[in-house]
Amino acid sequence: MKRVSFLGLGVMGYPMAGHLAANGYAVTVYNRTPEKARRWTQDYAGEVAETPDAAVDNADFVFMCLGDDPDVETVLTHAAGALPRSAIVVDHTTASPSLARRLHDELSELGVGFVDAPVSGGEAGAKNGKLSIMCGGDGAHVELARPVMEAYGARIVHVGPPGHGQLTKAVNQICIAGILQGLSEGVHFATRAGLDIDKVLEAISGGAAQSWQMENRARTMADDEFEFGFAVDWMRKDLRIALTEARENGARLPVTALVDQFYADVQAMDGGRWDTSALVRRLSDSD
Amino acid sequence: MKRVSFLGLGVMGYPMAGHLAANGYAVTVYNRTPEKARRWTQDYAGEVAETPDAAVDNADFVFMCLGDDPDVETVLTHAAGALPRSAIVVDHTTASPSLARRLHDELSELGVGFVDAPVSGGEAGAKNGKLSIMCGGDGAHVELARPVMEAYGARIVHVGPPGHGQLTKAVNQICIAGILQGLSEGVHFATRAGLDIDKVLEAISGGAAQSWQMENRARTMADDEFEFGFAVDWMRKDLRIALTEARENGARLPVTALVDQFYADVQAMDGGRWDTSALVRRLSDSD
Repeated sequence: MKRVSFLGLGVMGYPMAGHLAANGYAVTVYNRTPEKARRWTQDYAGEVAETPDAAVDNADFVFMCLGDDPDVETVLTHAAGALPRSAIVVDHTTASPSLARRLHDELSELGVGFVDAPVSGGEAGAKNGKLSIMCGGDGAHVELARPVMEAYGARIVHVGPPGHGQLTKAVNQICIAGILQGLSEGVHFATRAGLDIDKVLEAISGGAAQSWQMENRARTMADDEFEFGFAVDWMRKDLRIALTEARENGARLPVTALVDQFYADVQAMDGGRWDTSALVRRLSDSD
Repeated sequence: MKRVSFLGLGVMGYPMAGHLAANGYAVTVYNRTPEKARRWTQDYAGEVAETPDAAVDNADFVFMCLGDDPDVETVLTHAAGALPRSAIVVDHTTASPSLARRLHDELSELGVGFVDAPVSGGEAGAKNGKLSIMCGGDGAHVELARPVMEAYGARIVHVGPPGHGQLTKAVNQICIAGILQGLSEGVHFATRAGLDIDKVLEAISGGAAQSWQMENRARTMADDEFEFGFAVDWMRKDLRIALTEARENGARLPVTALVDQFYADVQAMDGGRWDTSALVRRLSDSD
């Protein structure tokens, strides 16, 4: 059985590494806060490493799910010397396409594969093993990693060369920004108009206005519930990546840029940890 | 069997009236352009009336599917004197909530029921009889009209008192404005980034960015196809209704207002008849 390492036991990584252990892989975990890694070994069968290089020593596959570009760079800098030749690093962090391309090239010189593989599906998808995984990198590396990722991925797509996984995640977040602002304005308008939100959703959720966000967030938005889900702070990080890339490739993202600023408003309301659907609270704030 | 009239044989009304005829109702149709009404009687069993008042004479139910507020007012002004007491008028036009409330009150004094019942589902939904219908009005009137509307409605919801059907349709269009602009920016970004759009859609269409619009429009947007669907000119009319109502109820609709202006840009590109997904062509126009 393949030896795998998992670096980063956050909200997503913790259950993802758990699925690998549950599927019989010999898992070594590393987390910056070691208490969390030790807690993980109480929930699952596996070993704790105290440092990134100790974690990846002897690994066939190294999975990472970290916060942002600097976290990925720091961990890989510490681990690179210990990576076995022909190991494959799969980065589930949502990070910059440019970083993904650079890491792919640098690791390639060490004989190590690199796949940028951000995920979608949130905490629920990580827990029930139903994540969508968008993979950029060499096809051979993606296919080698695919059966392992199937422990937590329901839809694993090789979208293109290095960086294309991150670019695809950017498309995902751009679409969500527009959807959530539109849904926020719809729910806000419905409230102001005195509509019965349940009746409204019953009437429109089967048609051209339908979205995953409407199905999963409209009700909680109407109830002013935001202490769950995907945090505004993380969304701003993802939108920064999308807007930075757009500055380079010339794409025009007027509403994405505007919604990013609306999220800055939400952060100013002390809402950085609220779910991204909290855009509606920004609208209703004066009510 | 009930006698029904259908006023307005446009892209939506033509097949809707056809479903009534196919379901065995004695249908009398009226259209401002009489050639179209005569053509309808070649496709379906039914009669043509030359004027609105001749069309509604003896009707149990009067269905309307017209363009805008003035059309509804003009037709009903011509027909009101001929409406039988206890007839029920069901207006499928997307029109103003304020007009719906006024017509409900005025017809009520004549002993005639009025239900504002805008639809969603587009030309395809009208043709295959799978429309969503959002009904505002008196519950008794909605329930009397429901079995008749089932000829073309898959989801018929009584959302509230007079005007609430139109307000619900406004929520629908507000949500769509945000979704379509987000999707446009996503497709535009993907094109600029050199992504394989089919791979991108395969990777993200099962997750939090999913929408009816993504499933039904992302591919045609990437292919620059807009000679079909729901026209920008009609969307601007619907957004005018939503923005006017928001001015009165105090709702804040920043992105809806911005997208309405983007649609003005599309009209300036001679795109008034293009599908609403043509927002992406506005972004790529300089490419």
